[in-house]
Amino acid sequence: VTEKITIALDAMGGDHGVSVVVPAAIAYLKEHPNQRLILVGGEEAIRQYLPDSKVPDNLSIHAASQEVGMNELPSQALRKKKDSSMRVALDLVKAGMADACVSAGNTGALMATARFVLKMLPNVDRPAIITALPAVNGRTWMLDLGANVDCSAEHLFQFAVMGSELVTVIDGIAAPKVGLLNIGQEEIKGNEQVKGAHELLRHTSLNYMGYVEGDDIYLNEEVDIVVTDGFIGNIALKTSEGVAKMIRSNLKEEFSRNILTKLSALIALPVLKGLGRRIDPRRYNGASLLGLRGVVVKSHGGTDALGYAHAIDIAAKAVRSDIAARIEAGVSKHLSDQRATA
Amino acid sequence: VTEKITIALDAMGGDHGVSVVVPAAIAYLKEHPNQRLILVGGEEAIRQYLPDSKVPDNLSIHAASQEVGMNELPSQALRKKKDSSMRVALDLVKAGMADACVSAGNTGALMATARFVLKMLPNVDRPAIITALPAVNGRTWMLDLGANVDCSAEHLFQFAVMGSELVTVIDGIAAPKVGLLNIGQEEIKGNEQVKGAHELLRHTSLNYMGYVEGDDIYLNEEVDIVVTDGFIGNIALKTSEGVAKMIRSNLKEEFSRNILTKLSALIALPVLKGLGRRIDPRRYNGASLLGLRGVVVKSHGGTDALGYAHAIDIAAKAVRSDIAARIEAGVSKHLSDQRATA
Repeated sequence: VTEKITIALDAMGGDHGVSVVVPAAIAYLKEHPNQRLILVGGEEAIRQYLPDSKVPDNLSIHAASQEVGMNELPSQALRKKKDSSMRVALDLVKAGMADACVSAGNTGALMATARFVLKMLPNVDRPAIITALPAVNGRTWMLDLGANVDCSAEHLFQFAVMGSELVTVIDGIAAPKVGLLNIGQEEIKGNEQVKGAHELLRHTSLNYMGYVEGDDIYLNEEVDIVVTDGFIGNIALKTSEGVAKMIRSNLKEEFSRNILTKLSALIALPVLKGLGRRIDPRRYNGASLLGLRGVVVKSHGGTDALGYAHAIDIAAKAVRSDIAARIEAGVSKHLSDQRATA
Repeated sequence: VTEKITIALDAMGGDHGVSVVVPAAIAYLKEHPNQRLILVGGEEAIRQYLPDSKVPDNLSIHAASQEVGMNELPSQALRKKKDSSMRVALDLVKAGMADACVSAGNTGALMATARFVLKMLPNVDRPAIITALPAVNGRTWMLDLGANVDCSAEHLFQFAVMGSELVTVIDGIAAPKVGLLNIGQEEIKGNEQVKGAHELLRHTSLNYMGYVEGDDIYLNEEVDIVVTDGFIGNIALKTSEGVAKMIRSNLKEEFSRNILTKLSALIALPVLKGLGRRIDPRRYNGASLLGLRGVVVKSHGGTDALGYAHAIDIAAKAVRSDIAARIEAGVSKHLSDQRATA
């Protein structure tokens, strides 16, 4: 880790590319003048969004001639896009010229390319994606979120260990409570992978709480970390977005019903704004790819500059806490615990 | 179908048993004097909640000496509880003494017992649970919700056909739009079962829209029916409950912040009540078990009399529309369509 943290940004990635990434980088450096950012991508495109005045010294451009499409097959991106902004940003991390990479691009391509370029930590089979979610009592972390469709019990076990290490570091909780997402707390329920992971987790020194259900994610009473496979994690996340959108739309409709309700909307505005702030997805933007030999953060593809800057901040925190080394040590410790007692 | 619809109620089932089921039955019959209800369970317990005055002629008691516990293993319930209120209520349907059964009891036991007593329709392997959910534009139906943990492509296909028949009858939509829950609309994503079901569904005359994501459940723009396996369906449902609870709790906290926000809460009360009504789970209570030779409706275990009465109403509607025969015909038609084009 260099003294000044340097983060490489995939400037072309995401739904809005340079129009979000470049302003986010400038805003971020205003708040964090001691860090360095490298914008990776088409020089011309990037310069369009740079101020005409002097560009700060700690912001540089690194050229890359290609872009990975949002719907491109990961295997295609890996084979044919060797000079993509995503790939080059990861290469900079590999080469030690950057401490971390942030991308809002194609998740599957980012997973595959990061894995190829940076390699996995020992004893970790696959990278997992983790993010924090707002909850009634604080916040809850969930992984995996989209990367791994068919997960074995061992994969779920590794996710639990990696999540536990990250949350210890980021939230400063010594032994974060880990739960396994299932369809009921009774031991009889669940599919084979979940039951297998339950057996593995019971034999570690993790603070394992057993099975949790979908509503526990947003209550944060039982757990700090919810572990599930990437298919279910992604569906839980998208379903949550759907519910929040529906409630927002319903509130809007109810408040615009007549002149009296419109008036009450004006009066309730500070409250509604407070609510909006609490569940603002931009404040939670930035999902970490765990299990790699390096720090990679995925920003939501559709976020704005505020959300993107938050993802940069997540990456900086992960670098400062040397998360990859922590995970490597944690996985090795918990694996040997588990072997000793199994 | 008798002229007067008769519904057998598992009076002992659910978190609150007779204290909810009996008042719900009385309230329901006030609104629907032309129907008949049979309260199945412990006579003494039931009578405690009956009015001292005359009990209506169309409400009767049918004794059953046992109860199925909420956490009892389905196989245990099936073997050892042959005189349970749940089993006897289903026996009444089998014997033609009732047209439908409603239970708020143990879901797994209800599935297993209903399957054993009533048997499956031809070409349907497993019962599925379906319910309507509130959405921005109307409502969306989702199945399966908890019964089937490991589903094959064929199971998902059967769920789609059964859901389509039910929604046609209940909502009067000639060709309801069916979507398959996945983690992205691109054809490359998803697990093997989902991909297989996608292939099967493409070769039917169902109004199949392809893959949908979690947020589509609550938007009801792309689809009327969302098909998924019981594990994911249950998690999506519970996660949704969690988000709604969190937003409710946040709103409460924001509104009670100070005297001004408390005042604005008073002013916004009609709006908040309107919102509450729209997403009130009691108004959506009553999930149908599809695929059986008979009508069985599962009420939420924790609902109150208002919610339970809604589940009785769902059962009455299913009986009136002869849903089992419709599903039998539908499955057979779509299977032969699919075989012809495959």
